[in-house]
Amino acid sequence: MNLSNRASNTPASPIRKLFPKASEAEKKGIKIYKLNIGQPDLKTPNCIKKRCQNYPKDLVYEPSPGIPELISTWAKYFAKDNLPVTDKDLIITTGGSEAIVFSLLATCDPNDEVIVFEPFYANYKSYAIQTSVKLVPVTLKIEDNFHLPNAEEIEKKITSKTKAILINNPSNPTGAVYKKNELQMITDLAIKHNLFIISDEVYNEFVLDKKNKFISLMSFPKIQQQLILIESASKKFNACGARIGALVSKNSEIIATVTKFAQARLSSPSIEQYALIPIFKTAKKYTQKICQEYKKRRDTIFNGLKKIKGAICLKPEGAFYVIVKLPVDDTEKFCAWLLDKFEYKKQTVMLAPAKDFYATPNMGLQEVRIAYVLKSQDLKKAMEILKIAIEEYNKIYAKK
Amino acid sequence: MNLSNRASNTPASPIRKLFPKASEAEKKGIKIYKLNIGQPDLKTPNCIKKRCQNYPKDLVYEPSPGIPELISTWAKYFAKDNLPVTDKDLIITTGGSEAIVFSLLATCDPNDEVIVFEPFYANYKSYAIQTSVKLVPVTLKIEDNFHLPNAEEIEKKITSKTKAILINNPSNPTGAVYKKNELQMITDLAIKHNLFIISDEVYNEFVLDKKNKFISLMSFPKIQQQLILIESASKKFNACGARIGALVSKNSEIIATVTKFAQARLSSPSIEQYALIPIFKTAKKYTQKICQEYKKRRDTIFNGLKKIKGAICLKPEGAFYVIVKLPVDDTEKFCAWLLDKFEYKKQTVMLAPAKDFYATPNMGLQEVRIAYVLKSQDLKKAMEILKIAIEEYNKIYAKK
Repeated sequence: MNLSNRASNTPASPIRKLFPKASEAEKKGIKIYKLNIGQPDLKTPNCIKKRCQNYPKDLVYEPSPGIPELISTWAKYFAKDNLPVTDKDLIITTGGSEAIVFSLLATCDPNDEVIVFEPFYANYKSYAIQTSVKLVPVTLKIEDNFHLPNAEEIEKKITSKTKAILINNPSNPTGAVYKKNELQMITDLAIKHNLFIISDEVYNEFVLDKKNKFISLMSFPKIQQQLILIESASKKFNACGARIGALVSKNSEIIATVTKFAQARLSSPSIEQYALIPIFKTAKKYTQKICQEYKKRRDTIFNGLKKIKGAICLKPEGAFYVIVKLPVDDTEKFCAWLLDKFEYKKQTVMLAPAKDFYATPNMGLQEVRIAYVLKSQDLKKAMEILKIAIEEYNKIYAKK
Repeated sequence: MNLSNRASNTPASPIRKLFPKASEAEKKGIKIYKLNIGQPDLKTPNCIKKRCQNYPKDLVYEPSPGIPELISTWAKYFAKDNLPVTDKDLIITTGGSEAIVFSLLATCDPNDEVIVFEPFYANYKSYAIQTSVKLVPVTLKIEDNFHLPNAEEIEKKITSKTKAILINNPSNPTGAVYKKNELQMITDLAIKHNLFIISDEVYNEFVLDKKNKFISLMSFPKIQQQLILIESASKKFNACGARIGALVSKNSEIIATVTKFAQARLSSPSIEQYALIPIFKTAKKYTQKICQEYKKRRDTIFNGLKKIKGAICLKPEGAFYVIVKLPVDDTEKFCAWLLDKFEYKKQTVMLAPAKDFYATPNMGLQEVRIAYVLKSQDLKKAMEILKIAIEEYNKIYAKK
């Protein structure tokens, strides 16, 4: 008796699959700088924790589309940026991940296709397999700092089965923040080919340089009826474990459909929904501060990487990730080696091999994703250790 | 630009779709006895609420398969009943609903078939649509008190595409508690035809009469490698809004697969996982008490229904639901009418039409599901009002 094909096709998380090796290393007393996972070390805001402590109710099902007060406060957070989001356009989801699954289900039937830009958030693969949707990748280039290619390159991938374009802005794992002309090009394509856009904007608050600006696709009036925004409280409020996200659309049919999906899973967790309400009122103040912190960290990481001979990356612009091409033969092998063979003064570094962030086979074999989610002094040390590790690794494995 | 077929095929929740009419009635000052939804009025245990208040951590991602201490305490809860569940057999899920979706994904590819017994928990339909699985119903009979037919009846429905049997014991919506010989028959069928069994046992604590006993399919050694148990904290601990369930299997391949699905959605809500740990230690003490309460309620409902001329039901044995055949032409129409046309001394009753609990079209047109989730004195009144309502309704609509 066999499990389903989709069971075997679902990849293990590239971010999490090295956990067992990390545990082994820790048992040997090795300190690991964990740059593999987007789990920031920043504190959950006190106002959230206080609300958890003061949760006033029994744990009953809340309304399937979310607690009305949270919906309303989240919609207002968009309205402040002049985005036309009202209460009826927003459904609370159990994390941004559920919002993506609901978006794929709403727009695609099995075997339909969705255009994605690789490297992309690795879990998109699992969501696509679960929903029987085919991801069709457009490959981005490290030398373009992972910005979009021209429309023709994307258009080549559109078929009669294409139903949507899935874009992540700012991008995990590349840190790219897309510019107005790129987003305009995407909306033009979607309108021309009658496609939905699923725009994963969960890192919207994390644009690190003044010269860049986050532009939501929701600010393009012509695309609004074809647009689904993915939102999340996880990263912007350091509340990853709350499992609260949102799906936003001006298309009332999409909202009606997603409401039915939400009804089937009954509700999102009650306490965390309730607890998040106040932070939205001071959201920008909070996120501006942590954004400064990420900028510092980004600069530390980038300076550290520049000192590694043969490492290639351009300066990441947003979120808190960077894809780096390392001067090693195979980053899967190298990342495992970092944990089970290497140590420098009882320390090592944990990174995510980039291969699994690509849909095209054999892409990204020399790349890793680094999440700069530690304090700058730790990141500095981690980059020094990485430099030493690469030298040592290549003494053993580099082709002569 | 159209949404997907599965978007349009997903049914609105039969339990929730009358909410707007209920709101309108409430605005007119009408008191509604809500027997439509399995949302008990019982209090969430204090030990759970206290743990929420004392949640000691930041809201970080917890491990994808669940907090180890919760896994371990939940596994021990099974072990007390001599079920061979250990820590490695159990994954925490975001509600029982997620556990069912994961089970369908793990066992079926698109267009594969799963045998279900109708009437069944209506949301199974949505989970099947979301996972592109075809539910193949075996119809149960009200005159058998919704117990299983013989093996031949079930075998007729098994095809080369059948991958699993989905059974809910005790049953929502029928209240049936399956007997040893019925369960033995199901396991024999599954073994003979090489099928998985997905056994939704979330109401395991709610068996209302001493002469009946809950028997977990996990107690049949021969089926263990083919078995997935669905568990939930929602009903047994009056913590529906926690969104914490579990998927249990002795098949390590299933656990490995479901771990990958769990990784893709990152984690289940942190606070509620943490909060549920202590209640498992005194679970039986707690559930025995509330089970007594449900027995009282069941008797009240059943006595009330006996007084309604033409209403047909046998005594429900477990969970807190009953399917009743009412002497009305169409329960969809009748249930809507109860909310928007009827009142008795500014009171009415809200019920779930049973049609949507069937997969076969036009079944259950005269049946409703009643969830006895209110206090006995309220249930008594509700049944009196229902009696009056049926008489009044039939004065208007009954065929002469």
